[in-house]
Amino acid sequence: MEKNYILKKGTDIAFKNHVDECVGTGRMGLALQKEYMDQLKVVQEEIGFKHIRGHGLFSDDMAIYHEYEEDGVTKVEYNFTYLDLVMDNYMSVGIRPFLELGFMPSKLASGEQTIFYWKGNTTPPKSYDMWCDLVVATLKHLMERYGADEVVTWPIEVWNEPNLPGFWKGADMEEYTVLFEKTFKAIKSLDKRFRIGGPAICGVEDGKHMKFFMDFLTEHKLPIDFITRHHYTSEFPENSGHYSYIRLVELHESMTSVERSRDIIDSYPDYKGIEMHITEFNTSYVPDAPIHDTNQNAAFTASLLAILGDTSESYSYWTFGDIFEEKGVPFTPFHGGFGMVANGGIRKPTFYAFKFFKDLKGKCVLREEDAVVCRDDEGVYRGVLFNSNTDRIGRKLEMSFTADADDTTYTLVTKTVDEHTCDPLKVWHDLGEPSSPDDEQMELLRSSDKPFIETRLIEAGDGKARFDINVEEFGLVYFELKLVKICPDRGYDYDRVMRGEPKAKNA
Amino acid sequence: MEKNYILKKGTDIAFKNHVDECVGTGRMGLALQKEYMDQLKVVQEEIGFKHIRGHGLFSDDMAIYHEYEEDGVTKVEYNFTYLDLVMDNYMSVGIRPFLELGFMPSKLASGEQTIFYWKGNTTPPKSYDMWCDLVVATLKHLMERYGADEVVTWPIEVWNEPNLPGFWKGADMEEYTVLFEKTFKAIKSLDKRFRIGGPAICGVEDGKHMKFFMDFLTEHKLPIDFITRHHYTSEFPENSGHYSYIRLVELHESMTSVERSRDIIDSYPDYKGIEMHITEFNTSYVPDAPIHDTNQNAAFTASLLAILGDTSESYSYWTFGDIFEEKGVPFTPFHGGFGMVANGGIRKPTFYAFKFFKDLKGKCVLREEDAVVCRDDEGVYRGVLFNSNTDRIGRKLEMSFTADADDTTYTLVTKTVDEHTCDPLKVWHDLGEPSSPDDEQMELLRSSDKPFIETRLIEAGDGKARFDINVEEFGLVYFELKLVKICPDRGYDYDRVMRGEPKAKNA
Amino acid sequence: MEKNYILKKGTDIAFKNHVDECVGTGRMGLALQKEYMDQLKVVQEEIGFKHIRGHGLFSDDMAIYHEYEEDGVTKVEYNFTYLDLVMDNYMSVGIRPFLELGFMPSKLASGEQTIFYWKGNTTPPKSYDMWCDLVVATLKHLMERYGADEVVTWPIEVWNEPNLPGFWKGADMEEYTVLFEKTFKAIKSLDKRFRIGGPAICGVEDGKHMKFFMDFLTEHKLPIDFITRHHYTSEFPENSGHYSYIRLVELHESMTSVERSRDIIDSYPDYKGIEMHITEFNTSYVPDAPIHDTNQNAAFTASLLAILGDTSESYSYWTFGDIFEEKGVPFTPFHGGFGMVANGGIRKPTFYAFKFFKDLKGKCVLREEDAVVCRDDEGVYRGVLFNSNTDRIGRKLEMSFTADADDTTYTLVTKTVDEHTCDPLKVWHDLGEPSSPDDEQMELLRSSDKPFIETRLIEAGDGKARFDINVEEFGLVYFELKLVKICPDRGYDYDRVMRGEPKAKNA
Amino acid sequence: MEKNYILKKGTDIAFKNHVDECVGTGRMGLALQKEYMDQLKVVQEEIGFKHIRGHGLFSDDMAIYHEYEEDGVTKVEYNFTYLDLVMDNYMSVGIRPFLELGFMPSKLASGEQTIFYWKGNTTPPKSYDMWCDLVVATLKHLMERYGADEVVTWPIEVWNEPNLPGFWKGADMEEYTVLFEKTFKAIKSLDKRFRIGGPAICGVEDGKHMKFFMDFLTEHKLPIDFITRHHYTSEFPENSGHYSYIRLVELHESMTSVERSRDIIDSYPDYKGIEMHITEFNTSYVPDAPIHDTNQNAAFTASLLAILGDTSESYSYWTFGDIFEEKGVPFTPFHGGFGMVANGGIRKPTFYAFKFFKDLKGKCVLREEDAVVCRDDEGVYRGVLFNSNTDRIGRKLEMSFTADADDTTYTLVTKTVDEHTCDPLKVWHDLGEPSSPDDEQMELLRSSDKPFIETRLIEAGDGKARFDINVEEFGLVYFELKLVKICPDRGYDYDRVMRGEPKAKNA
Repeated sequence: MEKNYILKKGTDIAFKNHVDECVGTGRMGLALQKEYMDQLKVVQEEIGFKHIRGHGLFSDDMAIYHEYEEDGVTKVEYNFTYLDLVMDNYMSVGIRPFLELGFMPSKLASGEQTIFYWKGNTTPPKSYDMWCDLVVATLKHLMERYGADEVVTWPIEVWNEPNLPGFWKGADMEEYTVLFEKTFKAIKSLDKRFRIGGPAICGVEDGKHMKFFMDFLTEHKLPIDFITRHHYTSEFPENSGHYSYIRLVELHESMTSVERSRDIIDSYPDYKGIEMHITEFNTSYVPDAPIHDTNQNAAFTASLLAILGDTSESYSYWTFGDIFEEKGVPFTPFHGGFGMVANGGIRKPTFYAFKFFKDLKGKCVLREEDAVVCRDDEGVYRGVLFNSNTDRIGRKLEMSFTADADDTTYTLVTKTVDEHTCDPLKVWHDLGEPSSPDDEQMELLRSSDKPFIETRLIEAGDGKARFDINVEEFGLVYFELKLVKICPDRGYDYDRVMRGEPKAKNA
Repeated sequence: MEKNYILKKGTDIAFKNHVDECVGTGRMGLALQKEYMDQLKVVQEEIGFKHIRGHGLFSDDMAIYHEYEEDGVTKVEYNFTYLDLVMDNYMSVGIRPFLELGFMPSKLASGEQTIFYWKGNTTPPKSYDMWCDLVVATLKHLMERYGADEVVTWPIEVWNEPNLPGFWKGADMEEYTVLFEKTFKAIKSLDKRFRIGGPAICGVEDGKHMKFFMDFLTEHKLPIDFITRHHYTSEFPENSGHYSYIRLVELHESMTSVERSRDIIDSYPDYKGIEMHITEFNTSYVPDAPIHDTNQNAAFTASLLAILGDTSESYSYWTFGDIFEEKGVPFTPFHGGFGMVANGGIRKPTFYAFKFFKDLKGKCVLREEDAVVCRDDEGVYRGVLFNSNTDRIGRKLEMSFTADADDTTYTLVTKTVDEHTCDPLKVWHDLGEPSSPDDEQMELLRSSDKPFIETRLIEAGDGKARFDINVEEFGLVYFELKLVKICPDRGYDYDRVMRGEPKAKNA
Repeated sequence: MEKNYILKKGTDIAFKNHVDECVGTGRMGLALQKEYMDQLKVVQEEIGFKHIRGHGLFSDDMAIYHEYEEDGVTKVEYNFTYLDLVMDNYMSVGIRPFLELGFMPSKLASGEQTIFYWKGNTTPPKSYDMWCDLVVATLKHLMERYGADEVVTWPIEVWNEPNLPGFWKGADMEEYTVLFEKTFKAIKSLDKRFRIGGPAICGVEDGKHMKFFMDFLTEHKLPIDFITRHHYTSEFPENSGHYSYIRLVELHESMTSVERSRDIIDSYPDYKGIEMHITEFNTSYVPDAPIHDTNQNAAFTASLLAILGDTSESYSYWTFGDIFEEKGVPFTPFHGGFGMVANGGIRKPTFYAFKFFKDLKGKCVLREEDAVVCRDDEGVYRGVLFNSNTDRIGRKLEMSFTADADDTTYTLVTKTVDEHTCDPLKVWHDLGEPSSPDDEQMELLRSSDKPFIETRLIEAGDGKARFDINVEEFGLVYFELKLVKICPDRGYDYDRVMRGEPKAKNA
Repeated sequence: MEKNYILKKGTDIAFKNHVDECVGTGRMGLALQKEYMDQLKVVQEEIGFKHIRGHGLFSDDMAIYHEYEEDGVTKVEYNFTYLDLVMDNYMSVGIRPFLELGFMPSKLASGEQTIFYWKGNTTPPKSYDMWCDLVVATLKHLMERYGADEVVTWPIEVWNEPNLPGFWKGADMEEYTVLFEKTFKAIKSLDKRFRIGGPAICGVEDGKHMKFFMDFLTEHKLPIDFITRHHYTSEFPENSGHYSYIRLVELHESMTSVERSRDIIDSYPDYKGIEMHITEFNTSYVPDAPIHDTNQNAAFTASLLAILGDTSESYSYWTFGDIFEEKGVPFTPFHGGFGMVANGGIRKPTFYAFKFFKDLKGKCVLREEDAVVCRDDEGVYRGVLFNSNTDRIGRKLEMSFTADADDTTYTLVTKTVDEHTCDPLKVWHDLGEPSSPDDEQMELLRSSDKPFIETRLIEAGDGKARFDINVEEFGLVYFELKLVKICPDRGYDYDRVMRGEPKAKNA
């Protein structure tokens, strides 16, 4: 399919690029692991997110909340040994938490309901005062260790998906507002600079729940700092063995519920225009959906990154890496985990959707269903092109660009991620789908997870630079068009080098 | 051009692969440099040579030889500070010297003739006794520091290209035999296990000089350990500014002089069959020949690596890296230096000629002008394919292989280095041939110096695995064909993943 | 107290130094952690143990054993994802497992009894066949990944402390022999080269249990490869808050039970002289005994290292590091954990007991209650001196040595670890006992965990080198006495340098 | 000798601490070396200087200036390959050049006079226009590569020690003013933000030369940015073999010439109060004076660091490391080189004079001939104490401090560098003064180059904290006194841990 795109100098199309605001992670306690940190390091060095959000800050494996008997009285004490290790690890790679307050320490819980393989307790606290004490003590400790001015910039979200019975006992939204209000007030008393949000709902009956929460805020006059929700863009999975096969929902259909949330919020005069954060998003919401490892997922994610900023101040991909235990420990490296990066530090194609959007700079001069292009103050064009679809239809995009330019030479750099150039899943399959790849196989996988790089010289004329870029099905292409001055060193002639030297006359 | 190649199980074609025996380097003193060591580290980690040979062990920048006055008498003292640093550096990357004894410390020299920008003195010693003392003291010091058993395994070559007047005053071969004999005897007195060779001649009148040297050995009954010479495969260059443009000599024509040396040696009964070492080889013999940076050079070098073992026990590519100062300091990173690796650690295409030959294992089952294939004990085939020519003729090789195989599935891995997939010189050109590339440009260059990797599944039948590989002009392809067992995890179905999931019936 | 020790050249005192054979670790799953691996790296780089032994290979956090339903039938599957990560981590620091088979995966267990904060199931399997399948499948997987020849060298121990009801339901030794025999036979069927031992008992009624086990072996004619037991040298602790205060048992009294085991074993003709391994030892057996962090612990451990080889082929200090969760997560870095290394990589004094014994070489020429000295083939003396006691009595040891020597100069190097020179616990106390030390405090702690180094020149005469070394209470001193040749460079005069230069006459 | 010092809260004694402003280095070209960079890394990580100044920016080994013939005309071209490597190396460790313009490229020189083993040409240019072109082209190149805003902050000094005939032909100061003026104007034309100074004279007849230069400035109305000179504090050396033995000049006597320069400058109304920079200082001015490696040198340097700020905006220790070739390559690691760090990265005692002064913070509350103490806003006291003397007189300083304090507990940390605790030279001597230390010896040396660290708890009363610190002859002590809150964890009792546990009653 042919496309013709014009890139004009003065243009400034609305496009909010919050790609690096936040990224997701399974649970805090996993940040103690070496492999987890190795993967996060890859992500931070090459993409670089500002915040990281995950569950389980207060779950038992973090070992923060303790009770003991003394003189017949039950007393509480806090242990921040692992919290320090986790936060130090995050700081060491330049990322800060987007704190999700939850789940319940089993000692502080009112019930025994748990969720996941790792058994996060999802019941209300046995005492809201003790809960608030825990929250405040934890924040205080963080302020002492990392500085108050720093810690108050870490956004705080109260709990996770309370509209699901698995995550909050009985999906009791009434009870959630109690939790929210008490927590909100306790933290603001500690330091009113903290920015706090909720209700962190997922898509199930999201309209009803969002209204309920906004009514509550209005009624209680709570000066909340931002609203949060989640966003997954697939239908119910079909299971087979360890895996879940899913179908993608059409892109704009998928955005309906997000837009609905935005509309509901804006319909409340006190909260109109307040920040909304999508604190989780991905295609499938299960950590064993093979689609996560594919180029199709990368292209679809790119199409989401092009539009999520329209409604939301951040959108946190669930999750950066594949150390994740909600359904247990995966059996193979390519198990359909949420990660941009697989075990062993293999970048999946989706990794590059984020990297490429991160590299955009300047004003938006093109925004189409398959392309976003920006131009910076120095006249450099940078674009992300994507060929996304819910089905495999064999479509190749042949894009022709006409860009405002000076009448001189430009370098065009393209970086291509598609099923031909960067598909480690295919390599793994061709190696026999090994569950325990050996060193040689890992090395091969690692050398198969990079974009294919090409450069071209473009001669501009009539104030236009013209160039073509093809995007294969499910492909992703990043390009950069930059003015260049060819400065050959004295005596250097590239064409002569390339054509070879004619035999000397008398030889 | 189509090729059909048969790979048979039992075959054992003569093919001596000494690819990793030795590699060249400008001069010893450069090994003090950080950039030099960074480049050597890349080479050693990914290829791994056993020995390294270069000039200037005794040149002034190594600061070994000193004289001073005491009580009116001139005395000699040795300083091994830099020698230790150099050797420690080599040891730290697992490489050992192939010691070339030369050039002359200016204090010990009989004249003032020097060679190169860095001014190596190329005159005989003012006293052969003092020269022998220097050699013996140096070897003794090395034996103390690194162990005698270790140091006696380092081959020793006496001087460099004495048949050129620039390298040895007057190209006086008669004088050279004096130097050789005295040095040889002094070292053997220290420890007779040392292995010593010469005459290190280059191609100029090599037949005459080789005979002269063999006559001398015979006459003096010297039990030399090996014979050495050099080998460059280009015509005289044509100069322009800082650069030298050359033409390659046709491959087999180029081998004539090497074969002549072999024949001469074997014609002396006392030395018949003795080891011959090519202690320098490359296409061009000048360090500013742009061809060195091209894919053409890589393909031609591969064609040499396929045949040099026929006559020689080692062949040392001149040189591993681009920190090299014989004609001064280069003005740009792609200046036609000898190196496999350019400044900044950029692997040039020729790097992969060595890496690919190094990865061959087992018995040779195919050896053609454009292919060498080996098969190991476990039935894995590994091959290097190359499309080399002295001219650009637009030839593409379409190779079809039929390999003895079990009737099951195989993984075919190919790694392609050609002008489309791995040509950092072109990227540099397209960036404007910058003499001082900035960080972003260096990163782009660094991500453009890797082979393109592909994998395929091959179904064998009738005891044969059949597969096709194309090799573009001046291209280099490494392949590996290995039996594979596809072991899908419970519920994993790669085809289902790739074709996408049909919409659920009732959705 | 003065001591006079004679070091004679020809002497060869019985002294078996197995200091580096094995070291302990909490549980396998902790080896996934970054901090754990950082600590192990310190230990391996500076001491270097051959094997590592810990609990929990089959516990739920390793996620190996799984059951699922298919067509109404319960089937078993194994997941080696985390096992690979753990073993790869071990291999990366050059250590191999001493495999302890246990505890029970909860899905395979016959009961619900668990031990520790991390809930290891300590009941027999619901089916011995399924247990043996699990063991064999795990070993097979390891053999595939790391090579059969390698894996069969990893010693295997069946279960842990079955003579304690907490570790093995009902402390049912009868049931243990069933477990042992079935496991033993299953493994030997897989590969008879595997070396297997038991019964891994602790000191509680150890005589009775050892005899029972030896009777069983004899009766069943089991060709066991070695016998194992544990050894802790303190009395019952007294608790206060998070901590346990203990008293050391007098050294030789502490050895009684180990010697008893040796005697019992040797009284069975079929097993006389068979290897005994102490697969755990330490002063206190609780992970919250502050003594572990002291210099007293270091000195006492040294006194143990001097004698444990008399009865045992290995003795595994429980444990190398402080990432350990049996009683939960510690509240501070100096919490009396078992580790030689505290969190943050701080070396505790006990670390040096191991390092110093590891550095001994050659034949033993002195072995006293406070000293072990060896002499190697080149005449170098190396010794470990220790001032150990169960009580603080204010004793300083003033040792005078007279060593056989040549009449020349020697260098004496001493490395001192005592409460004055290397006591990070004191530094931490003086910093206010911070539970979360900041970067500056950590840096100070890290620069306080090194021995104090001194050198002296000793002039030997009459064939004797004489030197004095003081050992403070609870101190540890390593020394090395080595012949030296002072070779001043031309013009260098150290004495002149040190005394300063007299003013020039006419100045 | 007893000293009693009072530290008062409100005090603010004049003390200008420019310890980290600049450090010296042999010549630019040495920054290509690996060992050089390893040493600089140590210095930058632990001390951290802002600028680095050395000779030889334009000397031949930097290979910047070239001439060639074209069409019968001589043309000039510049090569910045090595300049980039050097500057990139500096940037990588966070240090910026203090540019010294010199020496003369031999192709641009008017004569053949050279200085040093490495032959820096010290004659005026054959053409001042060509010289100015070279300077401007070099600065322009740096501005392009590192940014103009960055590069204009690098101070520029014109030439080195023109008042010595070895450094500037004939010590022709008249000619120097020509060089200065032309260079000054050329640079200011390029970018007037550049800060430029001179005359970089050494102490020989410094009064006369300084006046001459100031007269010249006044007459030509040159708005120079700062004045520079050098400062060495020893008498003429006495030579023996490779070494130079020197005597220190008494501290205040040594300062006379510096103060004279300051006075002269300030006597010129147009330049009164202008910045003065000491662009080189050390005890001895020769790179083979063994005193450089001693504790005496460290203490004397500390006494200089306490007062140099009185007259000067910076004082650059000549030099940071021991890769330095002015008199050739040293024969041993402890050869009396200028460096704070010896080959192999060994910190000499003098290293800590800089580190300790760098760690001072806040206002000065004590400044004596043997002590400087500062107090920061949070009430922390930090001090450097030094026992310096030109002769060894066996004096020990016993200092008693009384500091304003709250009535609570303080931690006192001391770091001691003296002949007993941190004297790698002595260790090297005791090892036999090896010229090529082996790995084991290097490790011992490396573990002997750290301060001895001690901590104490101080109980303040009556608003005073009292503590004693002894400083051995030629010793250096850094201390820090900081309020501490002892927070024992529940049940932790340090005293109980240290005294041991009484035997349980019924045991």
